[in-house]
Amino acid sequence: MTEIGIGIVGGGYMGKAHAVAMAAVGAVFDTKLRPRLEMVCASTPASAERYRAAFGFARATDDWRVLVNDPAVQAIIIASPQETHREIALAAFALSKPVFCEKPLGASIDDSRAMTAAAAGQVNMSGFNYIRTPASQFARQLIADGTIGDITWFRGEHTEDFFADPARPATWRTTGDANGTMGDLAPHMINAALALIGPIASLVAMVETVHATRPGGTVTNDDHAQMMCRFANGCMGQMYFSRTAHGRKMGYAYEITGTKGAIRFDQEDQNALWLYRAEGPEATRGFTKILTGPAHPDYAAFCQGPGHGTGYQDQIIIEARDFLRAIETGAPVWPTFQDGLDVAQVVAATFASAQTKSWVDVSKF
Amino acid sequence: MTEIGIGIVGGGYMGKAHAVAMAAVGAVFDTKLRPRLEMVCASTPASAERYRAAFGFARATDDWRVLVNDPAVQAIIIASPQETHREIALAAFALSKPVFCEKPLGASIDDSRAMTAAAAGQVNMSGFNYIRTPASQFARQLIADGTIGDITWFRGEHTEDFFADPARPATWRTTGDANGTMGDLAPHMINAALALIGPIASLVAMVETVHATRPGGTVTNDDHAQMMCRFANGCMGQMYFSRTAHGRKMGYAYEITGTKGAIRFDQEDQNALWLYRAEGPEATRGFTKILTGPAHPDYAAFCQGPGHGTGYQDQIIIEARDFLRAIETGAPVWPTFQDGLDVAQVVAATFASAQTKSWVDVSKF
Amino acid sequence: MTEIGIGIVGGGYMGKAHAVAMAAVGAVFDTKLRPRLEMVCASTPASAERYRAAFGFARATDDWRVLVNDPAVQAIIIASPQETHREIALAAFALSKPVFCEKPLGASIDDSRAMTAAAAGQVNMSGFNYIRTPASQFARQLIADGTIGDITWFRGEHTEDFFADPARPATWRTTGDANGTMGDLAPHMINAALALIGPIASLVAMVETVHATRPGGTVTNDDHAQMMCRFANGCMGQMYFSRTAHGRKMGYAYEITGTKGAIRFDQEDQNALWLYRAEGPEATRGFTKILTGPAHPDYAAFCQGPGHGTGYQDQIIIEARDFLRAIETGAPVWPTFQDGLDVAQVVAATFASAQTKSWVDVSKF
Amino acid sequence: MTEIGIGIVGGGYMGKAHAVAMAAVGAVFDTKLRPRLEMVCASTPASAERYRAAFGFARATDDWRVLVNDPAVQAIIIASPQETHREIALAAFALSKPVFCEKPLGASIDDSRAMTAAAAGQVNMSGFNYIRTPASQFARQLIADGTIGDITWFRGEHTEDFFADPARPATWRTTGDANGTMGDLAPHMINAALALIGPIASLVAMVETVHATRPGGTVTNDDHAQMMCRFANGCMGQMYFSRTAHGRKMGYAYEITGTKGAIRFDQEDQNALWLYRAEGPEATRGFTKILTGPAHPDYAAFCQGPGHGTGYQDQIIIEARDFLRAIETGAPVWPTFQDGLDVAQVVAATFASAQTKSWVDVSKF
Ligand SMILES: NC(=O)C1=CN([C@@H]2O[C@H](COP(=O)(O)OP(=O)(O)OC[C@H]3O[C@@H](n4cnc5c(N)ncnc54)[C@H](O)[C@@H]3O)[C@@H](O)[C@H]2O)C=CC1
Ligand SMILES: NC(=O)C1=CN([C@@H]2O[C@H](COP(=O)(O)OP(=O)(O)OC[C@H]3O[C@@H](n4cnc5c(N)ncnc54)[C@H](O)[C@@H]3O)[C@@H](O)[C@H]2O)C=CC1
Ligand SMILES: NC(=O)C1=CN([C@@H]2O[C@H](COP(=O)(O)OP(=O)(O)OC[C@H]3O[C@@H](n4cnc5c(N)ncnc54)[C@H](O)[C@@H]3O)[C@@H](O)[C@H]2O)C=CC1
Ligand SMILES: NC(=O)C1=CN([C@@H]2O[C@H](COP(=O)(O)OP(=O)(O)OC[C@H]3O[C@@H](n4cnc5c(N)ncnc54)[C@H](O)[C@@H]3O)[C@@H](O)[C@H]2O)C=CC1
Repeated sequence: MTEIGIGIVGGGYMGKAHAVAMAAVGAVFDTKLRPRLEMVCASTPASAERYRAAFGFARATDDWRVLVNDPAVQAIIIASPQETHREIALAAFALSKPVFCEKPLGASIDDSRAMTAAAAGQVNMSGFNYIRTPASQFARQLIADGTIGDITWFRGEHTEDFFADPARPATWRTTGDANGTMGDLAPHMINAALALIGPIASLVAMVETVHATRPGGTVTNDDHAQMMCRFANGCMGQMYFSRTAHGRKMGYAYEITGTKGAIRFDQEDQNALWLYRAEGPEATRGFTKILTGPAHPDYAAFCQGPGHGTGYQDQIIIEARDFLRAIETGAPVWPTFQDGLDVAQVVAATFASAQTKSWVDVSKF
Repeated sequence: MTEIGIGIVGGGYMGKAHAVAMAAVGAVFDTKLRPRLEMVCASTPASAERYRAAFGFARATDDWRVLVNDPAVQAIIIASPQETHREIALAAFALSKPVFCEKPLGASIDDSRAMTAAAAGQVNMSGFNYIRTPASQFARQLIADGTIGDITWFRGEHTEDFFADPARPATWRTTGDANGTMGDLAPHMINAALALIGPIASLVAMVETVHATRPGGTVTNDDHAQMMCRFANGCMGQMYFSRTAHGRKMGYAYEITGTKGAIRFDQEDQNALWLYRAEGPEATRGFTKILTGPAHPDYAAFCQGPGHGTGYQDQIIIEARDFLRAIETGAPVWPTFQDGLDVAQVVAATFASAQTKSWVDVSKF
Repeated sequence: MTEIGIGIVGGGYMGKAHAVAMAAVGAVFDTKLRPRLEMVCASTPASAERYRAAFGFARATDDWRVLVNDPAVQAIIIASPQETHREIALAAFALSKPVFCEKPLGASIDDSRAMTAAAAGQVNMSGFNYIRTPASQFARQLIADGTIGDITWFRGEHTEDFFADPARPATWRTTGDANGTMGDLAPHMINAALALIGPIASLVAMVETVHATRPGGTVTNDDHAQMMCRFANGCMGQMYFSRTAHGRKMGYAYEITGTKGAIRFDQEDQNALWLYRAEGPEATRGFTKILTGPAHPDYAAFCQGPGHGTGYQDQIIIEARDFLRAIETGAPVWPTFQDGLDVAQVVAATFASAQTKSWVDVSKF
Repeated sequence: MTEIGIGIVGGGYMGKAHAVAMAAVGAVFDTKLRPRLEMVCASTPASAERYRAAFGFARATDDWRVLVNDPAVQAIIIASPQETHREIALAAFALSKPVFCEKPLGASIDDSRAMTAAAAGQVNMSGFNYIRTPASQFARQLIADGTIGDITWFRGEHTEDFFADPARPATWRTTGDANGTMGDLAPHMINAALALIGPIASLVAMVETVHATRPGGTVTNDDHAQMMCRFANGCMGQMYFSRTAHGRKMGYAYEITGTKGAIRFDQEDQNALWLYRAEGPEATRGFTKILTGPAHPDYAAFCQGPGHGTGYQDQIIIEARDFLRAIETGAPVWPTFQDGLDVAQVVAATFASAQTKSWVDVSKF
């Protein structure tokens, strides 16, 4: 057991999630490396100090360079807005410090490319937490095992409704491609598509703003978007992403059809995976609702009882375990910056297709 | 109460369904016109006679012209394969006899166009039964009432799995566009999209054969297909159709998002409609699972108890009621041949888009 | 194919359901006997005539003796209130005419006993329609096949909410044990318990009126009731019955645990049966949602497509098929008057236990 | 922010859960008191040391007295088997140290009574974690607010299947009342019943062993049990508890009917609460599936996004927050030892009723 000093940039939604995860991960997974909450950084001295006290960090700063350069900070988690990711990551890699970066990797494909280049030979990891639930990890296993045969179709969505109300005022979130639905929500489901099915060869897409004006301003980024695609392995697919999907709170959902069966999942009931196998007599076939438990990946560390359930915060703890393992072994643990870049490429292709109203090759981006 | 002599062409899946419906509809809906099962027609004398006896028709024939021309046959239901629809309908209209035609209207867009032209001024109706359930009729009402506001997104699917098993032999169903998934299954959901949202302005599509060879032959039509579209009212949508969707038995399902709420429906649980309204405190918002009952369209005639449920056969009885009403009043009852043609146009556009790999204007077809 | 003249006493909720069923059953099931709607009886000449015209009967009467005695009426369906069942059934049996009687068999256990005695050697059948759905018939098969092993526990409920609103006025339904929840709703689920698990040896129960006064009068029968029981085969069980269960529209639901698996069913989604089998690796176990289809009992006659669904009215058509078969063969078809009496015994035991606040032997009633 | 030294007795299932919770709670809830993992105790020096290292405690011991007496241990969590609870709690209270005790409070009602007596004036808390989910806390609020009116019926169950397989060998869990289903599982749901509805006045019960022999021994405690009860407020209820309920993994579920609506909940989908309100037009009534979110009790601290979900471990973190708050303020935080005793009384009454096969007054126990 060795201690390691953790620095987190950002103390908001995700900064807190990672702080909690780092506090808990050792006890949950009996990790070799044991995190010490060394320093937190936020935009202002006051907020940084508030986060320090709340989350239990030793020190606080309002300058991420201070954090990155501090010798007691041995690994860095970037949980600040997308425009900040590139500079911070590059500075950390320059000092050969391991970096975990929240999704999306960069604010643009250029950022993502630069970050991935800099990550070469370094410990790096991308924050795609939803693919890390026991259910979705198990879905990946089932596909890899051939349980549902060759995949013939994929449907994915990431839908929420925090901007469904047209009366909700404009904020910084309603400006900038990186903060729109394609920039902010789509990366999770695109990552899932790539992880579950494989690379996307080509796609055709629509991207649009549903409510162009809101109290307080004009909306300059996208509210929702959709695509159809062809995966490199030949499988056909469709996806939808929205922040205006009334009723959907965590609509990270997919349906996968194969030649021997099918899988369905909806993150709103994250502890259940639905599996159909074309086996046995017709009379007893149907989708089986499998509740996650110790028989599924990464579940047992949280609870010995099946069906007792893991939650959002547990996903971040799983990421923390892997980041620590990556640091310990020096070997990257999936998903890496490269995976973040793969997603960014699909996002870039999506915007291009929507603009040209035509099919595009993803490899061109 | 007046009797009317009914002739049905076809005694298979749908021929039987319509025969049962005509036997039951009077008692269910207390119709003014009371059907008399006058004549049934099938491919061979033997099968025709078998159907006659089984369903309770007075007479049988293996020649649809005999049926159409028989003076005691006062109204005609076409429940034979798609290639036969055009000729039969035209012959019936030539005698000014009312025609109900199963979906798809014709075997091709040309057929559909010719049939719709011939239907002008005649009593005509198209067999889109799924849109006639109490739940889907209620969905239409909710949208028309503005309950979920302006529609911003639509997703539809019609998925089944009767050809999901690659070992299932080739049949006549695996040849001919009219018998593939776009010809056979998609019309139901396209009709739903048009009925729920409105005309489709443009679309981009993929159409493909999943299992190109099967025991006994080559498959020359499509197993599954998908599209993205723009409705004339500006709403964005996506659809998927499949006969190889393992686990889906009656996957006629849609999700509709509006500015004030959302609707979800899946025909596999046809007696439930899910409604989300963005009203009241956040803490009590969610999708409400509404069980159909006497408060919903066309339910009360079947049962006085809510949640007691209607089934597939009841949809055909509802169609029968409307066909009789159309005959009685001489006024067309929705959906008409024109609606069948509207669907055919979208189907034609889908094939064209898939071939050209580009967006197409539906109005061009 | 032989015609048989049917007389139905009652033209309300169930009178209509049976009239429709008799009109449709021949075409649906290709029955040997073909029903002719000969005569309908209701309380007044005007209502009887109205039903005659609406349902398509040849004649009407307001005197059930006329109906029973009419030579053209060859089989009788009793769909009038419970207090009338006994007299009508006895009169019909006296003429050796087949009788189908709606649940509950009699208005009291004495009635039921007298009716069952009179039914000896006669064609007789009881109206427990819910146990006749494809799903519940399949549940019975699964249990008989040993698919879920020895049964260790049963939970049943029949819950609706038509009297949940305290502001709903008192009617004839709120007086008389035969019209309360135990008399009116419980028989369905008690019948299911007996059919699925077997005879009940002993029970302890609570019976009560939730809203003792309503606009327009005092309520003198029960709103809800519950029991715990021991089945003769040793299995333990519990049941609940209510007409004040807000939100439940057709809450005929059961859960059955066995040593090798479990079954769950809820009539509100009548086309799905949930089956758990303790087989295979833990990781893929779960309840399988089986959609009914042609592979399940009595489904195929209604529709060739699985998941397309049957509804309430179809249950009555299945009953009609069996009643006709019983008439044709002279052999009773389950469930018979004896089954109605078995249920009545449990109902009587329930009232007695509730009053004495003690366990009672069902065989004593 | 003040540190507090925590000692945990037991390092198994719950010992770990509490260790993780104490590591995470400060960052999650920004607690005033900040736990320091001071000492862990287990049966053997080796296991204790293993837990120490894994969970991050400063010290380990195999003697709980050492832990209790250690001055750096300022608060004690009892997560060892039920027979040990009493002695440990009493020793801790003797030193005026705050005690959190896992359910069931004692191994017998005598133990529970002695412990509750000793807890007078001390900081004490009982480990009923399931009632602490955002969904179940919200259910309590809804009932308290009168949203569903006066409660007329309650059904509860706690069902799992870890002993459903008759081939599973006998262990210490299959001996001793405290380790059977009534002792081990039922307390959670009884606690829920008391918390949601109020005290139980009287009950009648059945308790039994389903598989009396197992490989390796005879089973001397109960596999499943059920009761009917009358709550002090007049409400009628029924409950079921089982460790042999095939297919149920975390079947902590309840249904509550009131005069204005109803609530349904199943812990297997712990982030959803189903609410029916008898309001508005019939046509739009139904159960609303509410996904928990920041608008619900104790959710926001875990995640800002609704529907993102909490899990089992989060319940223990909520308990930790409350235990710390109780220590800080010196005021008991619900649920206390008294609540554990209230449950124990119902358990004792259940056994007595099952033995005497009669209704019993809970207050007599
Ligand atoms: N994986 C997931 O589920 C989620 C990921 N995210 C991602 O996490 C990142 C952070 O998002 P949120 O936590 O939602 O944002 P937030 O607005 O809640 O918090 C952002 C934090 O960054 C700090 N910050 C801003 N600019 C900074 C700068 N120049 N230097 C140092 N600190 C700065 C702010 O003071 C604040 O503490 C984003 O990249 C976002 O896309 C966000 C939500 C969920
Ligand atoms: N609305 C719905 O849910 C469904 C609609 N359909 C439609 O119903 C129509 C019939 O399909 P199915 O009943 O499934 O077919 P089927 O193969 O079960 O029955 C076809 C019937 O048509 C008869 N037939 C064939 N050629 C004929 C001819 N030249 N003259 C007279 N009779 C002829 C056959 O003898 C047979 O009785 C098709 O247009 C199909 O697309 C089919 C199934 C479901
Ligand atoms: N199996 C099921 O799902 C259901 C069964 N039932 C049962 O069906 C029977 C009838 O109930 P509903 O149809 O709901 O009642 P209803 O009130 O709708 O109809 C009763 C009919 O009986 C007639 N009637 C009453 N007294 C009569 C008399 N002395 N002679 C001749 N006709 C008389 C009335 O005129 C009326 O047409 C009852 O035994 C009831 O328990 C009712 C509803 C559902
Ligand atoms: N709230 C909940 O959801 C749950 C509560 N529990 C309760 O938690 C308690 C512990 O149960 P589990 O963690 O499942 O048991 P376990 O068998 O997993 O762990 C018991 C621990 O207690 C230690 N222990 C045993 N005897 C001891 C002694 N005399 N002195 C010191 N340490 C001793 C053992 O070494 C072991 O570390 C029980 O009271 C149980 O009823 C258990 C599971 C779930």
